[in-house]
Amino acid sequence: MSTFGQYFRVTTYGESHCLSVGAIVDGCPPGLPLTEDDIQPQMTRRRPGQSALTTPRDEKDRVQIQSGTEHGFTLGTPIALRVLNEDQRPRDYGDSTMDKYPRPSHADYTYQMKYGIKASSGGGRSSARETIGRVAAGAIAEKYLKLAHGVEIIAFVDSVGDEHLFPPTPTHPTAATNPVYLELLNTITRKQVDSFLPVRCPNEEAASRMADKIAHYRDQKDSIGGTVTCVVRNCPVGLGEPVFDKLEAMLAHAMLSIPATKGFDIGSGFGGCAVPGSIHNDAFATAPAIEPSVTGLRQQQNGTVGPRLTTKTNNSGGIQGGITNGAHIYFRVAFKSPATIGQAQSTVSYDAVNGVLEAKGRHDPCVVPRAVPIVEAMTALVLMDADLSQAAREHSKSRLGTQ
Amino acid sequence: MSTFGQYFRVTTYGESHCLSVGAIVDGCPPGLPLTEDDIQPQMTRRRPGQSALTTPRDEKDRVQIQSGTEHGFTLGTPIALRVLNEDQRPRDYGDSTMDKYPRPSHADYTYQMKYGIKASSGGGRSSARETIGRVAAGAIAEKYLKLAHGVEIIAFVDSVGDEHLFPPTPTHPTAATNPVYLELLNTITRKQVDSFLPVRCPNEEAASRMADKIAHYRDQKDSIGGTVTCVVRNCPVGLGEPVFDKLEAMLAHAMLSIPATKGFDIGSGFGGCAVPGSIHNDAFATAPAIEPSVTGLRQQQNGTVGPRLTTKTNNSGGIQGGITNGAHIYFRVAFKSPATIGQAQSTVSYDAVNGVLEAKGRHDPCVVPRAVPIVEAMTALVLMDADLSQAAREHSKSRLGTQ
Amino acid sequence: MSTFGQYFRVTTYGESHCLSVGAIVDGCPPGLPLTEDDIQPQMTRRRPGQSALTTPRDEKDRVQIQSGTEHGFTLGTPIALRVLNEDQRPRDYGDSTMDKYPRPSHADYTYQMKYGIKASSGGGRSSARETIGRVAAGAIAEKYLKLAHGVEIIAFVDSVGDEHLFPPTPTHPTAATNPVYLELLNTITRKQVDSFLPVRCPNEEAASRMADKIAHYRDQKDSIGGTVTCVVRNCPVGLGEPVFDKLEAMLAHAMLSIPATKGFDIGSGFGGCAVPGSIHNDAFATAPAIEPSVTGLRQQQNGTVGPRLTTKTNNSGGIQGGITNGAHIYFRVAFKSPATIGQAQSTVSYDAVNGVLEAKGRHDPCVVPRAVPIVEAMTALVLMDADLSQAAREHSKSRLGTQ
Amino acid sequence: MSTFGQYFRVTTYGESHCLSVGAIVDGCPPGLPLTEDDIQPQMTRRRPGQSALTTPRDEKDRVQIQSGTEHGFTLGTPIALRVLNEDQRPRDYGDSTMDKYPRPSHADYTYQMKYGIKASSGGGRSSARETIGRVAAGAIAEKYLKLAHGVEIIAFVDSVGDEHLFPPTPTHPTAATNPVYLELLNTITRKQVDSFLPVRCPNEEAASRMADKIAHYRDQKDSIGGTVTCVVRNCPVGLGEPVFDKLEAMLAHAMLSIPATKGFDIGSGFGGCAVPGSIHNDAFATAPAIEPSVTGLRQQQNGTVGPRLTTKTNNSGGIQGGITNGAHIYFRVAFKSPATIGQAQSTVSYDAVNGVLEAKGRHDPCVVPRAVPIVEAMTALVLMDADLSQAAREHSKSRLGTQ
Repeated sequence: MSTFGQYFRVTTYGESHCLSVGAIVDGCPPGLPLTEDDIQPQMTRRRPGQSALTTPRDEKDRVQIQSGTEHGFTLGTPIALRVLNEDQRPRDYGDSTMDKYPRPSHADYTYQMKYGIKASSGGGRSSARETIGRVAAGAIAEKYLKLAHGVEIIAFVDSVGDEHLFPPTPTHPTAATNPVYLELLNTITRKQVDSFLPVRCPNEEAASRMADKIAHYRDQKDSIGGTVTCVVRNCPVGLGEPVFDKLEAMLAHAMLSIPATKGFDIGSGFGGCAVPGSIHNDAFATAPAIEPSVTGLRQQQNGTVGPRLTTKTNNSGGIQGGITNGAHIYFRVAFKSPATIGQAQSTVSYDAVNGVLEAKGRHDPCVVPRAVPIVEAMTALVLMDADLSQAAREHSKSRLGTQ
Repeated sequence: MSTFGQYFRVTTYGESHCLSVGAIVDGCPPGLPLTEDDIQPQMTRRRPGQSALTTPRDEKDRVQIQSGTEHGFTLGTPIALRVLNEDQRPRDYGDSTMDKYPRPSHADYTYQMKYGIKASSGGGRSSARETIGRVAAGAIAEKYLKLAHGVEIIAFVDSVGDEHLFPPTPTHPTAATNPVYLELLNTITRKQVDSFLPVRCPNEEAASRMADKIAHYRDQKDSIGGTVTCVVRNCPVGLGEPVFDKLEAMLAHAMLSIPATKGFDIGSGFGGCAVPGSIHNDAFATAPAIEPSVTGLRQQQNGTVGPRLTTKTNNSGGIQGGITNGAHIYFRVAFKSPATIGQAQSTVSYDAVNGVLEAKGRHDPCVVPRAVPIVEAMTALVLMDADLSQAAREHSKSRLGTQ
Repeated sequence: MSTFGQYFRVTTYGESHCLSVGAIVDGCPPGLPLTEDDIQPQMTRRRPGQSALTTPRDEKDRVQIQSGTEHGFTLGTPIALRVLNEDQRPRDYGDSTMDKYPRPSHADYTYQMKYGIKASSGGGRSSARETIGRVAAGAIAEKYLKLAHGVEIIAFVDSVGDEHLFPPTPTHPTAATNPVYLELLNTITRKQVDSFLPVRCPNEEAASRMADKIAHYRDQKDSIGGTVTCVVRNCPVGLGEPVFDKLEAMLAHAMLSIPATKGFDIGSGFGGCAVPGSIHNDAFATAPAIEPSVTGLRQQQNGTVGPRLTTKTNNSGGIQGGITNGAHIYFRVAFKSPATIGQAQSTVSYDAVNGVLEAKGRHDPCVVPRAVPIVEAMTALVLMDADLSQAAREHSKSRLGTQ
Repeated sequence: MSTFGQYFRVTTYGESHCLSVGAIVDGCPPGLPLTEDDIQPQMTRRRPGQSALTTPRDEKDRVQIQSGTEHGFTLGTPIALRVLNEDQRPRDYGDSTMDKYPRPSHADYTYQMKYGIKASSGGGRSSARETIGRVAAGAIAEKYLKLAHGVEIIAFVDSVGDEHLFPPTPTHPTAATNPVYLELLNTITRKQVDSFLPVRCPNEEAASRMADKIAHYRDQKDSIGGTVTCVVRNCPVGLGEPVFDKLEAMLAHAMLSIPATKGFDIGSGFGGCAVPGSIHNDAFATAPAIEPSVTGLRQQQNGTVGPRLTTKTNNSGGIQGGITNGAHIYFRVAFKSPATIGQAQSTVSYDAVNGVLEAKGRHDPCVVPRAVPIVEAMTALVLMDADLSQAAREHSKSRLGTQ
């Protein structure tokens, strides 16, 4: 299914060789100020070629809003988003290497097996180009969340190959227990992240190690993987649906739907398995007061506004029982080494004949820097959907008065 | 939302203090042989108290089919499943410790903030008891997948705390590249897993280390986490929907919806980020022929049955571009250390007053052994849903004839 | 699919020969006062045998809440509802008439063709018994709508065979233009409707004509159809989703999902096709002021509360562009003559052999009186779902402040 | 929600003053031959101005496929469809009559109340222009159904005002019992329907009466309603989901989602309420043999192919228990008189000030002729979705072998 979300529904379309790619966003609240200028920056961050960031008037990957806004505000009706494919000519089936061989660890073979159709682009929808619609839709969600709640979503690279920003140690098998890490989550900004281009790891020494690592594999016509961390600040309390649609489950779903991802963990994550409960448990503490306007359902318990709590530690990653508790949400996403490499690969053809496949042209030796805005976009879509679901609950409960 | 799946839709209900818990399974194919005897074994494996497994006539957690079957076959109509709660009396709100304090790293606080209601059971739906409906529904899906495709789903414990069955090494930062691990995935059976009770780690030496680790924390009134690996054999090719509902995304969603989970990775996973593309790529190879009856859409390409391919390595974990390629699917799930511990914890009350919470009674110092059947059940639900989706595609395409 | 609704999701289960029938209601707002006593009255109105209404303690069709409430309030978690089937033994396949012949205009043949399974009850899910879950769920929705908005939903019989309460005339090809009809819609109560048992047509003369008509067909071992009108008063403005899920579309969907229905029209309906636009158009008028607390989004236009409008006539039936305008919603539902009749019918067997089918036992010669609570229940489900959808929109827009 | 269908999912976008209108079709089977030429004819039939039909190269409302096809075949990925709005400039809010007054029986007022936004086009999504996306998507569904099953879908006008093609009579309170009507349903073609332009009622005498009726109201600057009948031939047996998604419920939903509709009935419909069961029941008869390849699930009952049945009469309209029985499906849809009329109307402004609204320009005095392709499109969407759902069931059951 090419739709994500129950309340803020994003449906994307497009493969690499068609006329355009894009999305329809259905369920956006009416009255949100919105123009293409709100969307384009993340589109540009996602684009290939980091130097593009400094090109002020780049015409590529320009998004155009087709519907759903007027005079700079959303109408509450579907917002269609469209980006032209610049060279969309489908290739003829021919004798070329790529037509003969399913590329190893690409989607060529599985798409053909699933659809019984050999598309000129191989697994066309599995192309990174498909993420354009997600990033555009995510920018709309992010704008709403920022205006309505002050939500901040920042992703950054935290490892490339075996180079880590916070490598696990015996004391800190998970960075979640490391105060330096937690402080970074408190303060990191998108601007800081982009200042460490091309790696987008917000630490000079680590960024340098990672850049060297990428260069090493690039020079060998090889590729390497890495991980991205994302933190969400100022998330409202109470988001996430119990049982199947726990917030971490939706985030995991969203992240593993990004091409080339192999893993997701939240809060203390995999490393936290080695932390005993006595340390891992996040004891409660009294939180600083905030304005009643943003307190949600907790106001309605016994007709009074109870005190707001927070946690002393945050191994939970801001989510308990599938529901946000107001602490920062943070999680990691693992990206594999890109499947397209310059080295020759021994494999078999669609017809099961042994042969050698050699990729031509330029390729990206590590995807994590460009994955940063995609991770942010998918995070925004998950939160927006959860927020609308909870808005229905809160508002419908409030009509009952205090029981 | 308490529903999982688009085609094989499972809706669960129930919290710890209500009359019964259970599920409605909608969309099950008609004509499947099914009685309670197909469901009960996994229910029993999930139960607290591993010795229960050896009790031949245990009356607890007995599932009863309410509808949707007749004369031992499914009718194609909704199958309602019900298990009585044995002590379902809701507690009165009182002065007890648990009524005053939201338990750290439990769902008490977030449920109250989300719903504005203080349930006697705290975060009632977040209780492990909710998983009963999932396990029952999963057993139905598993029966279908076994009969229709020969699918085998086996989960086992692969780490407890810092004790691993396959610890990462410089040579094998991920077990995915380790032939010993791959051989285990080829051969492991559910019976073998259960022979290593209470730990369910299928290796005598490792199981012993893990059992010691659990005992260590239990003796300290503490708890510890761990990881579960799950392998799926004989999965049909072509399952998984591109873009948002990639099979790994659905698996991640399913796994992170299980209480106490903190992470998911598939194939080479997090460790695979350090493996360069030249090694990580799974080159294709010719697969042994199988019966045409199970070949699906690939038959229809150009009107002929093409050769079946497989991969020489399996760092992809059986999924490429979100779609199964016929190789074993395998993934890991991280479970945190249980939040309920015997030690006293300094925290604050709902009213933001500092205090100390002490849990009473017995508690489970490590959940991973009991999580095994839950992981298997959720895996079955994901595969079943994907299989029905692909069945619609295959069958509808076949009606067009060869284009 | 056995689920109705996107936000207030009702999933039913059960056929006539299984253990129990019921439903899971997911998405109910937390904090709604709810016990079985809120549900049972509509269950009893739906039951066969109108005299049952006067039996104070009838034990049949007793609904039992399984989950989702505590201390008389909803928790916000799924509410499971269950009613035992009293004689649920599936019949053995045998030589009986009903096993040989698919009953004309029943679902026996189509169920067998759809599922490839011959159930002992024929089209088991098509039985009127399936509506028990709907009526139970509808009673919960109705309670919420009443408490939150003062919504009133009243259905009554308006024709049996060719006997009409408001037969079409040249002046009034539709009752929608008849002031007497509109006044009835203003004032009718459920109590009044039930005072005209067994016909439930709230007019002594018409009820008498209809009762005679039913008796006539009953005496001939025959059956007859009829129509039910339903009116909704005090419906909030703004419910209904544009395009595919217009409120009238959802109502039509809901009504045509009730067994034995053949038609639906709203407002002026089919008769209104003959009314020219100059008369049919509902000119606007100023509405009496109501409390700001129930005014919804209209408050937010330009930051001020605009005046509330109403319409001078109501040929629209309270819905314009798929969205409620605050006027009464009213619509008609056509029910065919029951397919089970006492007369012998010439037909063919499943094996295509000519023969004669004779039904045994008592049967209901006209279903419309008992359909009244089912129509009300489905109406409540539609409105409840639309109300939660709009609650999300209103609440999310309000967070943006005045733009 | 702007999405229709669970398996063949159509999401539309666009209002009258935006850049383009269109749709994304997700879930289309791969391998379907498809180009714009398959879609354009129905787009053209839908357009204003019937003479457009004879213009061979009209550039207006030209649909362009954005994605999802290659070399003239569908890929199985989302098909995006786009039609430019030729004059898409949003009007400034000003002092014009239409900005001051919500148009009676239009959606201006309800859209503003729902969204809290005053769009320049009033209820922009409620415009007939929104139906472009539906018609385009419907043409794709229709093409599949034709190729896979030989399905034929033909709609025609059967009444305008009080002029009927088959007026109810004492003998035939419903046309369903009239052999002349049934014969018309057997034979009518789309070409015949279009030969009776501009009325699209396939009977010279009736078409003439209706044309006069329309002219009468047009000359008075007034408007008039009418009904459209639609027949489906060669529909597969077994389509339609029991309980909530009965096929007639889905059709009713689809039809009442078309702008300006007020009613739906199927088979004998409202008139059939007066037909006693002894006549109304459709006795079974042996059907002519058809090829086993199209027999579906019925083959699998006891491992043998049973004989195919049909019905002697067809008061059911081809659907029993919500499931198709192989007989023709036929139903009626009521359209109100258009709300835009040339006469002055006394109403109140948004600010509740009395005044007079006068519409300018040309308007359509009766919409039913243009509604014909829209009714056909929505019918195709319903059948396509039901067909994919049943394809999943049939194919998944077939994998179990004969039980």
